[in-house]
Amino acid sequence: MQERSLREFVDRQEINDLLVDYCCALDRMDLPRLSALFTDDCVVDYGPNDFLQSRGSEALEKSLERMWRWSRTSHHLSNVQIDFCDENEALCRSYVYAWHEREDGTNATILGQYHDRVVRGDRGWRIAERRMLMNGCDAGFKVNINRFEKITPPADWIAPNIDGTT
Amino acid sequence: MQERSLREFVDRQEINDLLVDYCCALDRMDLPRLSALFTDDCVVDYGPNDFLQSRGSEALEKSLERMWRWSRTSHHLSNVQIDFCDENEALCRSYVYAWHEREDGTNATILGQYHDRVVRGDRGWRIAERRMLMNGCDAGFKVNINRFEKITPPADWIAPNIDGTT
Amino acid sequence: MQERSLREFVDRQEINDLLVDYCCALDRMDLPRLSALFTDDCVVDYGPNDFLQSRGSEALEKSLERMWRWSRTSHHLSNVQIDFCDENEALCRSYVYAWHEREDGTNATILGQYHDRVVRGDRGWRIAERRMLMNGCDAGFKVNINRFEKITPPADWIAPNIDGTT
Repeated sequence: MQERSLREFVDRQEINDLLVDYCCALDRMDLPRLSALFTDDCVVDYGPNDFLQSRGSEALEKSLERMWRWSRTSHHLSNVQIDFCDENEALCRSYVYAWHEREDGTNATILGQYHDRVVRGDRGWRIAERRMLMNGCDAGFKVNINRFEKITPPADWIAPNIDGTT
Repeated sequence: MQERSLREFVDRQEINDLLVDYCCALDRMDLPRLSALFTDDCVVDYGPNDFLQSRGSEALEKSLERMWRWSRTSHHLSNVQIDFCDENEALCRSYVYAWHEREDGTNATILGQYHDRVVRGDRGWRIAERRMLMNGCDAGFKVNINRFEKITPPADWIAPNIDGTT
Repeated sequence: MQERSLREFVDRQEINDLLVDYCCALDRMDLPRLSALFTDDCVVDYGPNDFLQSRGSEALEKSLERMWRWSRTSHHLSNVQIDFCDENEALCRSYVYAWHEREDGTNATILGQYHDRVVRGDRGWRIAERRMLMNGCDAGFKVNINRFEKITPPADWIAPNIDGTT
């Protein structure tokens, strides 16, 4: 059990590094480094539009060239949760605060989640499936990211009178 | 010492997961899952007003129904610090970036801290006490969260002339 | 190898705590605690202007008195990456979301990175070198922090027509 735990901690560290690397490579726009974080046959789904879906790391790298349209970005990862399926596969959920700036100085921020399946291959842990969901965004963000759905209130719920919102 | 460390790492991981679970369950508005993260007799203090204080996980679950008034939220945890009192109890401090959106599209963001006492019970680690503090917020946030107090400058401090703020 | 891993995990935890302590001590404006996180002969570079560079923890503590000009701040750390040079030295990169508020209620937010060299001394891990870089900021932030440079697009890249940005 001690052996198992230590192994699991190494894996958790490597998977966390993988998810952080994605953010850093994207902000740097190091697209070869970024696509190398995914399996060759990865499936990536940022949203329902065709241009937000990619199959294979090569197609993903090509698709993410769209991020050049931002002059600057900053992707901050948090809330990482990792559940191991077996020793070579895990399901991960994480949150991202993603800020984007256009050449004209306007910006767009998204509060999102990454729901991933990661697998261990010859080159270490890689993202095999990524689905992005959006908790929310500011008025500047217009891309149609998959919407995160929360549980709806019970039918008899009455909004309280707090901060003038009811 | 090696045995102790490994045990402590497992505990740190479980406590970190507990704090992250709170954020995720709140954004999902999964209130039963959320209240199960607290001890039955927990004491929770978000601010001085009565409606921001709860005793017991049942009362907390009822109280947090107020969060239905937001159409969407996103709670991003960071800066987690854990100090063990003994092997079954720890004091934790963490930061949260919490974004909230109303049905009318207006939003409110708070930059806060959670100061927690967590204990190990039959069901694993749970939050026994939580006090929330606010470092700051934007103009849209109106709830009276406990204010985090910083150390005040010495009496003879003179503000420097930087970025036109003095 | 097991022995090495456990040691490395303890070090990773201590280094992570060090980086988080910086954020917490800065928001609390506990300057003696903050300067104690650095080596006596540290080199700190927030930007090209003289007042943004410090040599030695004593000079740094004095220099950071400028942060009193903010009424409130909130520094949220994420994306921590640690690469060990040897068992007593490591290179770290991390991201920070840093919110600042002036006495007049206006605020300024920066999305930045810390690139650090940390060393193990008699008092544990300390920051020996810190260079701050800026991914971006809002219109309220005016300080000349070192700019993070991303890779530029290939000469033949054509901006796609997404969200009205082209």
